[in-house]
Amino acid sequence: MICNTEKYIALSGGVGGAKLALGLSHVLDTEQLLLVANTGDDFQHLGLSVSPDIDTLVYTLSGLNNKKLGWGRQDESWNFMQACEELEMDTWFRLGDKDLALHLFRTQALSQGLTLSEVTNELCKRFNIKTQIVPMSDDPIKTFVNTSMGTLPFQEYFVKYQCLPEVTGIEYKGIDNAKMAPSFDQYLNDPALQAIIICPSNPFLSVQPILSIPAVKNKLKKIMKPVIIVSPIVEGEALKGPTAKMMKELNIDCDVNGVVELYADIADGIVIDNKDSVYVEKIESRGIKVHTSNIVMQSLQHRIDLAKDVVEFSKMLCKR
Amino acid sequence: MICNTEKYIALSGGVGGAKLALGLSHVLDTEQLLLVANTGDDFQHLGLSVSPDIDTLVYTLSGLNNKKLGWGRQDESWNFMQACEELEMDTWFRLGDKDLALHLFRTQALSQGLTLSEVTNELCKRFNIKTQIVPMSDDPIKTFVNTSMGTLPFQEYFVKYQCLPEVTGIEYKGIDNAKMAPSFDQYLNDPALQAIIICPSNPFLSVQPILSIPAVKNKLKKIMKPVIIVSPIVEGEALKGPTAKMMKELNIDCDVNGVVELYADIADGIVIDNKDSVYVEKIESRGIKVHTSNIVMQSLQHRIDLAKDVVEFSKMLCKR
Repeated sequence: MICNTEKYIALSGGVGGAKLALGLSHVLDTEQLLLVANTGDDFQHLGLSVSPDIDTLVYTLSGLNNKKLGWGRQDESWNFMQACEELEMDTWFRLGDKDLALHLFRTQALSQGLTLSEVTNELCKRFNIKTQIVPMSDDPIKTFVNTSMGTLPFQEYFVKYQCLPEVTGIEYKGIDNAKMAPSFDQYLNDPALQAIIICPSNPFLSVQPILSIPAVKNKLKKIMKPVIIVSPIVEGEALKGPTAKMMKELNIDCDVNGVVELYADIADGIVIDNKDSVYVEKIESRGIKVHTSNIVMQSLQHRIDLAKDVVEFSKMLCKR
Repeated sequence: MICNTEKYIALSGGVGGAKLALGLSHVLDTEQLLLVANTGDDFQHLGLSVSPDIDTLVYTLSGLNNKKLGWGRQDESWNFMQACEELEMDTWFRLGDKDLALHLFRTQALSQGLTLSEVTNELCKRFNIKTQIVPMSDDPIKTFVNTSMGTLPFQEYFVKYQCLPEVTGIEYKGIDNAKMAPSFDQYLNDPALQAIIICPSNPFLSVQPILSIPAVKNKLKKIMKPVIIVSPIVEGEALKGPTAKMMKELNIDCDVNGVVELYADIADGIVIDNKDSVYVEKIESRGIKVHTSNIVMQSLQHRIDLAKDVVEFSKMLCKR
C-alpha cells in the first residue's frame, strides 16, 4: 500500500481497463481512488438496464469475475438463457443466471428514480467493494458505430456482429447534453487530485465516450494535473478486443505512436510496454513523457506491479 | 375426445384449478375451450410483472410444471435466487432461473404496450399450447386480504406470511373499473357456449376476483347457460391451500354446503366428491343439481375423467 493522500482518477472501459483498475485498488487507499466507468455501452436488453463496463468493474473488484470466459460472473449457469432460447427470445447477448440478479437490481432501482451513480454505489456496497466506482455520467449516452453495414448500436457491433463490420466512424448520442456524474466532477476538482489515469481500454469505444462529455473535455484541457495513458497497444497488437482493427480501419497508425496521436491534446505521460521502447524517443520529442514497463497483465501480481509503476510515474510528471 | 362444437369457459386460479383445466384440454377440442385465469394475484416483483395463475396454467398445459414443488417450472435451478440472497434482495417470492424467461418476456412485452391478453396468447404460442388461456381482464386488479395483521397485498399474505394471519375480509382493488378481457367477453356471448365451469380453486382468492368484475357479475346473473361449480372442498378439507381455513375464519360452513352458499346466486350444478354424497339432498332441495364423482385428481387420468364427468353433467343441466 502506498501511503499518501493524493487522489487518482482512473478512466476505464471493460475487461482490459478493469485489470489495471484492480491493480490500482490494491496499491491505493479506498479514499484515494475513483474508478470512472464508460457507460456508452449501456443498453436495454430484454427490458433490463445493462451497464457492461460498470458490471465488469464490479465483478472484477469483488473477485467474482469469470476468469475462464473473460466476462460475466464466475461459477455461472445458463438455464435462463436456455429457457429464452426455447421461447425464441433474443439470446445474442448472454445473461447468466447469477448475473441476472445485478441487472434486475439495477433496473428496478433506476425505475424507482435512483441515479446510475446511486445504484452503482449501492451495488458496490452489496458486493463488498470498498473502492468507489462511478459511471462517467448519470445521463444516457449511447455509442453507435458507423460501419460498412450501416450505423449499429454498440452492442450489436460488438456482440451480435463480433466487431466484424469495417468501422468508418463513431458517435456518442446524447453526449452534448450529458453532465459528469457528481463524484467524477467532485474528484476532478479536488485539490488533492494527483493524476488522471487512462486505463488500457479501447480508445474509441471505452475512453473517448468519457472524454467527449463536454465538461470533461473542457476540464482536461486546462487541468493542472497530469494525464497518463496506459497503452492498449503492444507491438502493434491490441491487448484485447478490436482496438487494433479499428485503428487500421480509421487510418490511424496501429502502434503506440497512434495511441499518442489519439490522446495528443491531453496526454502528459504514457506507459508503454518494454517491447515498444523503440518509440520512446519519438514520443518524448513531442513533449510527452514515457515510462516503459510490462503492461501485459497476466496475473494479479502483474496488475499490482503495473499500478505501482503508473502511480510512481505520475509523481514524476508535471503538467505541460 | 368429445366431438361437438359446444363451447366451454373454465374459470381457474392456480394449481388446483389448473388440474381440471388440463383435464378439460384433453377432452375438448381447442376451439371448444377458453381458460380464464384469475389475475388478482398479479404483482410486480423485483421489477417483473408476475402473473402466478396464468403462469401455472401455462406450465401445466405445456407439461412443464414442477410436479415435485407443486408450483413453477420443472427441472428448475435457483442460482439467480442465490445471487439475490447474496445481494440482500427480496427472496421471499421464489423465481427459478428458467421461470425468469417467462417473466422477462411478459414484463418487456407489457412495457412495449401489449395487453396482458396479447402477451398471454404469445406465450401460449411459444410454449406450444393449443388451448386458449386468457386473463380475466387486461386491467389491473389487485387482491388485498384484510387480516389480523392489517391489510396485506395477496402475495404477502399467501407467500410471505404463508396464509397464517386470520382473514377478516377480501378486497379486489381496481375491480370497479375493470373490463373483461376481450376473448372472455366474446366467449360469454357466443351462442355456442354450453356451460361455465368453475374449477376447484380458492373461492375467495381465485374465483371471486373473476366473478366480481362488474360485467361478469351482470352477465352471469342473466345468462341462459348453466354454471357448474367443481367443489374445492372434500369432507370439510380443502383440496389445496387455505380455502378451508379462510371459510372458517369468515364464518362460512366449511363443507360443500358452504361452497354452495358462496356460489348460490349463480350455480346451476355442483360436482362434489363421492365422499360428500350425504349433502346431495340438501343441495338439490335448493334447486341446484349435484353430480358426485372422484374429485381428488391425483393423476392425469383422474383429471381427464373428472373433466369428462363435468362436461357430461353440463349437458344434463338447464338454466334455472
